[in-house]
Amino acid sequence: MRGEIISVGTELLLGQIANTNAQYISKKLAEIGIDVLYHTAVGDNHQRLKGILETAQSRSDLIIFTGGLGPTKDDLTKEAIASHLGKALVEDAPAMMKIEAYFTQRGIEMTENNRKQAQVIDQSTVLPNDHGMAPGMAVEAASIRYILLPGPPRELIPMFDHYAIPYLQSLFPEQQVVHSKVLRFFGIGESALEEKLLDLIDAQSNPTIAPLANEGEVTIRITAKARNIDEANELIQKIEMEIGSRVGEYIYGYNDDTLPRVTFRTLKKGALKLSLAESCTGGLLSQMITSISGSSEIYSGGVISYSSEAKSQLLHVSSALIEEHGTVSEECAKAMAKQAREALNADVALSVTGVAGPDPTENKPVGLVYIGLATPEGTHSYRLNLSGTREGIQLKAAKYSLFYLLQYLKGI
Amino acid sequence: MRGEIISVGTELLLGQIANTNAQYISKKLAEIGIDVLYHTAVGDNHQRLKGILETAQSRSDLIIFTGGLGPTKDDLTKEAIASHLGKALVEDAPAMMKIEAYFTQRGIEMTENNRKQAQVIDQSTVLPNDHGMAPGMAVEAASIRYILLPGPPRELIPMFDHYAIPYLQSLFPEQQVVHSKVLRFFGIGESALEEKLLDLIDAQSNPTIAPLANEGEVTIRITAKARNIDEANELIQKIEMEIGSRVGEYIYGYNDDTLPRVTFRTLKKGALKLSLAESCTGGLLSQMITSISGSSEIYSGGVISYSSEAKSQLLHVSSALIEEHGTVSEECAKAMAKQAREALNADVALSVTGVAGPDPTENKPVGLVYIGLATPEGTHSYRLNLSGTREGIQLKAAKYSLFYLLQYLKGI
Repeated sequence: MRGEIISVGTELLLGQIANTNAQYISKKLAEIGIDVLYHTAVGDNHQRLKGILETAQSRSDLIIFTGGLGPTKDDLTKEAIASHLGKALVEDAPAMMKIEAYFTQRGIEMTENNRKQAQVIDQSTVLPNDHGMAPGMAVEAASIRYILLPGPPRELIPMFDHYAIPYLQSLFPEQQVVHSKVLRFFGIGESALEEKLLDLIDAQSNPTIAPLANEGEVTIRITAKARNIDEANELIQKIEMEIGSRVGEYIYGYNDDTLPRVTFRTLKKGALKLSLAESCTGGLLSQMITSISGSSEIYSGGVISYSSEAKSQLLHVSSALIEEHGTVSEECAKAMAKQAREALNADVALSVTGVAGPDPTENKPVGLVYIGLATPEGTHSYRLNLSGTREGIQLKAAKYSLFYLLQYLKGI
Repeated sequence: MRGEIISVGTELLLGQIANTNAQYISKKLAEIGIDVLYHTAVGDNHQRLKGILETAQSRSDLIIFTGGLGPTKDDLTKEAIASHLGKALVEDAPAMMKIEAYFTQRGIEMTENNRKQAQVIDQSTVLPNDHGMAPGMAVEAASIRYILLPGPPRELIPMFDHYAIPYLQSLFPEQQVVHSKVLRFFGIGESALEEKLLDLIDAQSNPTIAPLANEGEVTIRITAKARNIDEANELIQKIEMEIGSRVGEYIYGYNDDTLPRVTFRTLKKGALKLSLAESCTGGLLSQMITSISGSSEIYSGGVISYSSEAKSQLLHVSSALIEEHGTVSEECAKAMAKQAREALNADVALSVTGVAGPDPTENKPVGLVYIGLATPEGTHSYRLNLSGTREGIQLKAAKYSLFYLLQYLKGI
């Protein structure tokens, strides 16, 4: 099967956004064994889109469109394709109901152009949009499959994963599977990790082993080709065990795991409550925890002690301590964690205080961060020298604090 | 002049990287008034590249290639183009000297395939590579301009800026400038905004008016073509004033502004301090503020009152109030904001309490959010019915709270 991706939107041609949709779809199609041979981006222009469509029909069996399904006049993808295929546009009742409900719920009058979003190409398989109004669709004509997806990635990604991929897989049940498992590491750098696994990486063929560094973490993707998932999993497991025996202490999770999610699961399993006291991370750590649904089960709350005032008013850190050691100190980190744990009656508490930059504070260098961890057994602190931008230092500090908490939780 | 960009590299089609080169080049070309009508990505395959080239020749006067200039066998861009144009490849002496010097300096023997990098298409203008070995080139044939650039962005970007742009500008000394201004809206939907501006959008030619929705915000990009920046600005200002007279109350900023950045600027100008009390946004609002460097000047800190305990312990919201009205209520939002303002001795305070989902709490529906705003003149509250995922509701709630704060600050 020869696939190609056509992205419709003048914002691409003006350079306002990068074509991350084509990247995402290509990656996912590669995983299920479908080759993508071309990406094209074209503006919101009927005539040029038609030209692109004709070229694509002459060379591909699968043509995936992104963008141009919205309510406005320049959204013309499905209109252009329907007209080119000689098919009508019909209203999709579930999509229309959803749009109407959206406006009714909010007590706003629906403008006429929103009705357009519920239209789909006649005889197409509708791909529901769980995160927006415009549904996607899949349609076949003259042995070519056309898939239409919305432009915003937060709508496209779940639609593609949950509806388009199963649709494609149902077309080719005999396809060889390509299956991956991602191991997630923290506390070890990419090159150190690669060095410990160099012989495995050099000898790889099936499965392949691909390390990747991102936002202070390193992942290893193990990818196997096999006749079915079970065989692929068997191949993966062998390599995974070998990797685990060498660097297992740095593995904190798998696949879509994140440090916050693993922390959430671990605390929930132990029926433990966490509280936080953040200075230099400024709410980021709390936001990472509370982005998980159900986090109120394991999280009591916290304090953003962004000023000395907040440290003394909300956390009762003594001014004598701050005067003696400064707010960026082991002592302050410990006091913050201890107070956060007690004030909110939590089982464990984390604190972060440091210099995120760009300028030093209290004569302490950018990147110096102290993390406090208060537990029923006592209060510990950790010192970090982080590098990078303000944003990067904040993110790494937040992740390290979760990593230390996880290491503690592993031990109890 | 009609331009298009052809990016060569199988890594694009496998989704290993996004096509940020096409984005960069498009943005820069728009600034000098060259329209880009197509982006194409194709793999390292001679036959398919030839097909793409033929299509491009039939529709464009300027064809920019990225990638495929390196030393390996699958780097075939210039070979394919030279052969297609019936031109020879010749060695560029400065490029060859540079490559030889590189290997001599490091005491490594130069492999034969590195020699290939110094070859350029006969009669082309060589574009030096200040950050790598393979030079770029510009060549004309049958009134079409071809520009070949290397794939790695750290080589491509400086080459494009320092050599390709001046080359293009020298071709068209009379070129018009294209200048844009982005208006940033909050509190109004894309379709409602479009409806209010429909006559302007329908009548647009120069400047053009392009609405775009993203993460609960809408932007309008006004783009003017003119002989110089001043004339372009004049054209933009006229339309901007007309838009402002219709929907000015929803404009919160321009170009790269964000709600947190505008809030930061406005508070700083007024020498005002903000404090926060967040429930359902769980630290997101605080994180948005503290991601800005210098935020400690305007931000005292806050409380993440994720549990009733935190509301009573840290914010002293009375349990009688919570029992009577619930934590998701106007009364609780007001009490949270009032206490956050007082406890941290701030000038203004925001609070957010609501149901981010996915499940209802206190029998209140997902998306119901109350925002409190405490000021020296008193405490206000706002009720919102938001839709979307948990993440989307949190983000919109945080943005709305900043929007309400900005509206208040505008009035004082």
